[in-house]
Amino acid sequence: MKQYRAFCFDLDGTVYRGKEAIPTAVKFIHQLQEKKLDVFFVTNNSSKTPSQIRETLKQFGIDASEKQIYSSALVTAKYVKERFGQAKVYVIGQDGIRRAFQEQNIGMVEEKPDVVVMGIDRMITYEKLTKACLAVQNGAALIGTNEDIRFPTEEGFHPGNGSFVKLVSQVCNVEPIFMGKPSPVMLEMIQQEYGYGKEEMLMIGDNYDTDILCGIRFGCDTVHVNTGVVKAEAVKEKELQPTYYVEDLSEFHI
Amino acid sequence: MKQYRAFCFDLDGTVYRGKEAIPTAVKFIHQLQEKKLDVFFVTNNSSKTPSQIRETLKQFGIDASEKQIYSSALVTAKYVKERFGQAKVYVIGQDGIRRAFQEQNIGMVEEKPDVVVMGIDRMITYEKLTKACLAVQNGAALIGTNEDIRFPTEEGFHPGNGSFVKLVSQVCNVEPIFMGKPSPVMLEMIQQEYGYGKEEMLMIGDNYDTDILCGIRFGCDTVHVNTGVVKAEAVKEKELQPTYYVEDLSEFHI
Repeated sequence: MKQYRAFCFDLDGTVYRGKEAIPTAVKFIHQLQEKKLDVFFVTNNSSKTPSQIRETLKQFGIDASEKQIYSSALVTAKYVKERFGQAKVYVIGQDGIRRAFQEQNIGMVEEKPDVVVMGIDRMITYEKLTKACLAVQNGAALIGTNEDIRFPTEEGFHPGNGSFVKLVSQVCNVEPIFMGKPSPVMLEMIQQEYGYGKEEMLMIGDNYDTDILCGIRFGCDTVHVNTGVVKAEAVKEKELQPTYYVEDLSEFHI
Repeated sequence: MKQYRAFCFDLDGTVYRGKEAIPTAVKFIHQLQEKKLDVFFVTNNSSKTPSQIRETLKQFGIDASEKQIYSSALVTAKYVKERFGQAKVYVIGQDGIRRAFQEQNIGMVEEKPDVVVMGIDRMITYEKLTKACLAVQNGAALIGTNEDIRFPTEEGFHPGNGSFVKLVSQVCNVEPIFMGKPSPVMLEMIQQEYGYGKEEMLMIGDNYDTDILCGIRFGCDTVHVNTGVVKAEAVKEKELQPTYYVEDLSEFHI
């Protein structure tokens, strides 16, 4: 086994499942922390702030600082700041994404934006979608925090942010830019900010199409855990393979 | 020129444009009415009732009875009645589609429907879409009044009903059934109810992908009018061609 320094975890399906912790994952994270190895949480969820995610982790027995949490909201705000400077942004989304833009001092507007940013918004309406469509037709860039078409809940799949971004994209005939996994942007940001080599980083997740592909596109090693929605048998049929397979993280020795 | 008996008109872009009549179309319809030829209006708009559409036509100087108006709402309600009998339906949509279901005595429910029907709904919310997604995952059939991804307005394209049906279809991985043009269901219903031969029917419209394809799939002759959103040059590149091209209906002699 290589010596990894930075362990990047997906959250739902990897560290917890809905409202329950996955004990083998929690124990593994405790071991990493005892050995002073670096732990990061990399999530496509743009609706919660790092502080809210930190609270959730705490409930599951994991101590983490906000700096260890990379959400698609945070990365999107940083990306807009870097690429579009003083752009005005029309935001569809909840707390997490709005807070992230406030913290980057990016102006949020309702009319004539330069960029339309879409994160999951359970209060989305026809009016908001129409505003986004008209802005994009008038030349605004279209950025989605993540491209998940659906996400699992106890009652079945709910519509994910990607399904709404796709709607706007089809109405306007414009290709969106996505920030969340499988885009490698979040792992790139961790690398830049801490100076790791790619060979020192490991991406751990249950979802091939987001987590594992994100690691592969970034160029680091990956672990598929069989504790979430996508089962190992299905992943074994894919052309590009994860580096490791484990049933749960008790099998992964450091 | 063949002898046609039933002239089926698209509305927006063919008979009027937004809030203005197209005088050549109005005059042509008057001529048909004087010659006692049959006129029908075939629209994908499910938000208005036949009585509301009749009022609109009246404002443009056209007298029509509600029986001459075939909307995707009416056809959808009749289709559900025929195919699903006493099914319970969850409806996303406005006046037109709700009224049509009431008139067919089909029960509209919020929970555990057998069929999910989607028409354009400017009050659509995340909650309504989630309800539709969960019902379809639990086995309900998915029917869209029409598949228009976008529709033109004075300020640009707004999201059309098809874009929301596609969203639910992608979240659930289920193919929807569409009632409106280019599906031939509305023309089939006119044929069944009046007993015309297909060679006696003519479909007239400005939009190749809805109107002309609807006529072609049904199997009657078609007229492309150059008064709407899709220009003749673009239509001339298509593999399946309309029977006639006219700039406007003053060129069409009966």
